[in-house]
Amino acid sequence: MLRHFDAELQELKGQTLTMAGMAEQAVGRAMSALVERDAPLAEKVIEEDAAVNRLEVDIEEKCLSLLARYQPEAKDLRTIAMIFKIVNDLERVGDQGVNIAERTLDLLKYPLLKPLIDLPRMAVLAQRMLKDSLDAFVNANPELAREVCRRDSEVDHLNDQVYHELLVYMTQDPKTITRALDLILIGRSLERVADHATNIAEDVYYLVKGTTIKHRLAGV
Amino acid sequence: MLRHFDAELQELKGQTLTMAGMAEQAVGRAMSALVERDAPLAEKVIEEDAAVNRLEVDIEEKCLSLLARYQPEAKDLRTIAMIFKIVNDLERVGDQGVNIAERTLDLLKYPLLKPLIDLPRMAVLAQRMLKDSLDAFVNANPELAREVCRRDSEVDHLNDQVYHELLVYMTQDPKTITRALDLILIGRSLERVADHATNIAEDVYYLVKGTTIKHRLAGV
Repeated sequence: MLRHFDAELQELKGQTLTMAGMAEQAVGRAMSALVERDAPLAEKVIEEDAAVNRLEVDIEEKCLSLLARYQPEAKDLRTIAMIFKIVNDLERVGDQGVNIAERTLDLLKYPLLKPLIDLPRMAVLAQRMLKDSLDAFVNANPELAREVCRRDSEVDHLNDQVYHELLVYMTQDPKTITRALDLILIGRSLERVADHATNIAEDVYYLVKGTTIKHRLAGV
Repeated sequence: MLRHFDAELQELKGQTLTMAGMAEQAVGRAMSALVERDAPLAEKVIEEDAAVNRLEVDIEEKCLSLLARYQPEAKDLRTIAMIFKIVNDLERVGDQGVNIAERTLDLLKYPLLKPLIDLPRMAVLAQRMLKDSLDAFVNANPELAREVCRRDSEVDHLNDQVYHELLVYMTQDPKTITRALDLILIGRSLERVADHATNIAEDVYYLVKGTTIKHRLAGV
């Protein structure tokens, strides 16, 4: 009986990693579509979001089935609850990929506003945070989880920079407003991807260590 | 034993409603702060977010404790999983209250850009959706849940209107750009509150009916 449970839990972790890969890919492809001005790729990201959503429902059902059939305790129960929360964050990462793709399709109607440097950098950082937060989960690595949380402020800082730079464009030339707004919203989407990775990492830290590093519990 | 379980589950539902009230209040107060140009109220919203976050952690722990001690099955198990998801959405509604309060503090540095009409209307709609989604949960009312989902497009429509109106302001007078941007971001926050209410309502419908109305499963 217990061997079956372990095998099923492993499988569930594997599916969670698959879903993480899909969500990360959505963000990566949406950013490639932006940088390479590739509308069909942006459309593909939007189409494929339904598969990420289906996988979330599927994993949730498996979590409930595991709970009902094995009544796991302590650590195993917490691990399943953790998966339940992770897939929720991943689904929203997928949504951010869609948001970026939609803004990109709007941007492609106009000439390039400026060379894109900071946004692709933010994307690389946020995607790595997401990957590492999942690695921290699978390997029960609290140090890596803590490091992911630390990196969040780097993404926030870049996003502030992007925001203020685009504000200058808008103020100096009203013709740039629509495009600058799209880029500001893409920056916020990337910031949110990093937030989701941070949520996951905070929960992993708590799962492994039993104490929280959630800054949001300490007041804002 | 079972009577204890029922009592504890009722208590947990009650706490979830308390948390929903706090999250809704955060949004309501942030909007009052905006409309009445009341900076101390905006600061209060930001300070009090930590209490919403603590309640989320507290309710999650109680869910896990209920699962570990009673090993509930079928419907009860799904109800607890549902509470687990609801508090996650509620925590993010509280965050949107903070976002609105932060944008408001920025706006209060400048004179009023324009009379606020659509944003307060959006807020009222989004808050009512949130309240009704929780009512649908507590009373296991799938019709109400379905109605909440329908109302989401009304909020989206108002948000598009706000966005395009503010775009005109920005384009005609660059001095309005910072303020218009703040208001656009407040509109997005309210849209997101409505999205969280819709998430909750979709899950309630599924919990009660056993079939999904999630539009996001049908492709985008």
